[in-house]
Amino acid sequence: MPQPETLFSQMPKLKPDTHRARRENILDAAFTCFARGGFHATTMQAICREAGISPGALYVYFDSKEALIAGLCERDRAEFAERFARLAEAPDFLEALAAIGEHYFVAESHEKQRFVVEMGVEATRNPRIAEIFMGVDKYCSASFEALFQRLKDEGRIAPNVDIPTLAKVFSVLGDGMFWRRAIEPKADMRSVLPVIIEMVGALLNPTDELPVARKAAAFEVRR
Amino acid sequence: MPQPETLFSQMPKLKPDTHRARRENILDAAFTCFARGGFHATTMQAICREAGISPGALYVYFDSKEALIAGLCERDRAEFAERFARLAEAPDFLEALAAIGEHYFVAESHEKQRFVVEMGVEATRNPRIAEIFMGVDKYCSASFEALFQRLKDEGRIAPNVDIPTLAKVFSVLGDGMFWRRAIEPKADMRSVLPVIIEMVGALLNPTDELPVARKAAAFEVRR
Repeated sequence: MPQPETLFSQMPKLKPDTHRARRENILDAAFTCFARGGFHATTMQAICREAGISPGALYVYFDSKEALIAGLCERDRAEFAERFARLAEAPDFLEALAAIGEHYFVAESHEKQRFVVEMGVEATRNPRIAEIFMGVDKYCSASFEALFQRLKDEGRIAPNVDIPTLAKVFSVLGDGMFWRRAIEPKADMRSVLPVIIEMVGALLNPTDELPVARKAAAFEVRR
Repeated sequence: MPQPETLFSQMPKLKPDTHRARRENILDAAFTCFARGGFHATTMQAICREAGISPGALYVYFDSKEALIAGLCERDRAEFAERFARLAEAPDFLEALAAIGEHYFVAESHEKQRFVVEMGVEATRNPRIAEIFMGVDKYCSASFEALFQRLKDEGRIAPNVDIPTLAKVFSVLGDGMFWRRAIEPKADMRSVLPVIIEMVGALLNPTDELPVARKAAAFEVRR
């Protein structure tokens, strides 16, 4: 996919802001189409119709469905990076983690989560999608692994925690929540998320006063 | 899908065992094709070729890709029911759970897990697949919920554990492991699974002597 800078230099007639807005508009339309019909059933023509542009205009920005997926995944990665930066600086890690979890597993639309899991499945067969999707996946898990290492170095989590295993288990917890919301829009993530956060707390700090299940049991009163 | 009994009465020329073997052979061929190319790219013709039968013979048993998926999901459900029956009777629940986890998340082929997650995604758009897939999903989680309730009634888990929330969290843990192996065949589930089992142990029994993270840290020596 050409970089925006290259595009702008090739197309001096439009201002960079206009290009950016057009590109965003196309990505929004592509997301709508992919979310509605899935990757395979969605055609470039349908995306043009949704965006209200000609095929020629679309191909200036994205030459394939894969390029559109790359654009959408990169947008997700950038959003994650922004949220992650706030999490990494938060004084209370678990509280900030609960807030990020609230965004991704409760507030975020079911369509968005379905898009993510659909791209994951597509990545197992389509090498171009694999490169994009697994790249974002690795970026997210590496970010958490580095943060756990930093928390360990700062003495904020137990010194004997095995960081690589912790990061893998952490990914599995996030994957499971993504998957559940994606296939079951009405899944009750509000009751699941606090228990998962407690589990992460127990993993990070074995000396925590409250064992994970005692807190889990406490959620009974809220239901 | 016609029941085997109906089929047999319609086709008196072949013995029931022969019918069963043919049906199994077709399901094996269908799984091979779906695993290779995915649900959408797989044609009934490709399945006939793989099974070495004519379209006429295939349609006697399965009239659509959805009917084949129903047959495959039902086979998975029956296998789960068998494993679950042994788990439910095991004296040491966590040990038996680790064994079932070992089967599904370490020994089971990546192709099988990818098939499961692909059907989950397909279920979000295809009502016939949704009925089949979500039916199996609910069967599995209801089995675990009933078992947790039984363990609670028998005083084998903490009396204050909130069973419905526990069952939901438990599903999320299993979902996450399925998903991870499905999209990343080389994912190191051998180091993840014991930590997940410990987490479940902590959820079931807050009075457990070893907090979950101390045990998680102990896995460091095994890596």
